[in-house]
Amino acid sequence: MDKWKVISQKSIYKARFFEVKEQEVLLPNNKKHVYSIVERRPTVNIFPLTNTHNLYLISQYRVMFGKRILEAVAGHVDENETSLAAAKRELREEVGMWASHWEEISRIEKSASVIKETSHLFLAYDLEKGIANPDAGEDIQLVKLPLKEAVARVMSGEINNSATMIGILLLDNLKRNKKL
Amino acid sequence: MDKWKVISQKSIYKARFFEVKEQEVLLPNNKKHVYSIVERRPTVNIFPLTNTHNLYLISQYRVMFGKRILEAVAGHVDENETSLAAAKRELREEVGMWASHWEEISRIEKSASVIKETSHLFLAYDLEKGIANPDAGEDIQLVKLPLKEAVARVMSGEINNSATMIGILLLDNLKRNKKL
Repeated sequence: MDKWKVISQKSIYKARFFEVKEQEVLLPNNKKHVYSIVERRPTVNIFPLTNTHNLYLISQYRVMFGKRILEAVAGHVDENETSLAAAKRELREEVGMWASHWEEISRIEKSASVIKETSHLFLAYDLEKGIANPDAGEDIQLVKLPLKEAVARVMSGEINNSATMIGILLLDNLKRNKKL
Repeated sequence: MDKWKVISQKSIYKARFFEVKEQEVLLPNNKKHVYSIVERRPTVNIFPLTNTHNLYLISQYRVMFGKRILEAVAGHVDENETSLAAAKRELREEVGMWASHWEEISRIEKSASVIKETSHLFLAYDLEKGIANPDAGEDIQLVKLPLKEAVARVMSGEINNSATMIGILLLDNLKRNKKL
């Protein structure tokens, strides 16, 4: 079993946040096949929760969709940075928030083939609010809503960003099981 | 508001399942910025459920992770094919299964920037089992498990594929709310 084998790979295109590669793979039937894949830098998604189970999300304009999207605070992990450090940095930069307690609630793979992107989902609590420092081109509005309401917006389809959906549904499960 | 504007874009690289583009965007501060993005073909994820709430997942070797992964039946939507037709085709090809009833339970965006991938999540029920016809290089094992057990495997981190996690957690929510 497990006879698939990457024989060789070459870099085709490199952008700031991802790289395209062509991989030559030996299949179990001994044939060779070339696959094109995208490797994106790891990302983090942050779920700041108050002790009364209010969740902070953000609303921001996304060029890709041509409209504002309600989603979790998120960003890329820089080189030589841990995912936790990236989560703390993004929460501070995007919404000017600090948290005393952090917990990685999930590590997800966005896709299983073609695109490789690992995302680390963090619960942040014991929150303090300061002043945000977003990138040029970011126009971020902080949105505070009960976790229950966030779940309703996932179920209605209003919230449709994958990592945001997962974080909210996981927190809902933890809350129902008295682990939150 | 909403002053971001895509001024121009050019195709950089085209693979079977995705295309890389460079987009020149006008920011609200009137500066121009070039973003590299990946547009992947839409995908489908299928959740076949029995009337006693057993879910069918698959286990298959994924080159990207160098091991077998437990995930939902999934695939790309072909050109000139609807997402529902793609879902029916993938369920038939990958595990030799037919369903009389289909419902799109969610349409998710895997990412909010850099990579564009829409995925359609389908619930399939009233199932019939025939003979599978997988692609060369696919080695698929069908796994039947109670929905409750699938939720437990999401919570433990064993199931970490984003669309698979979302489908399972949505079905769990629908079941608890007597909508399933």
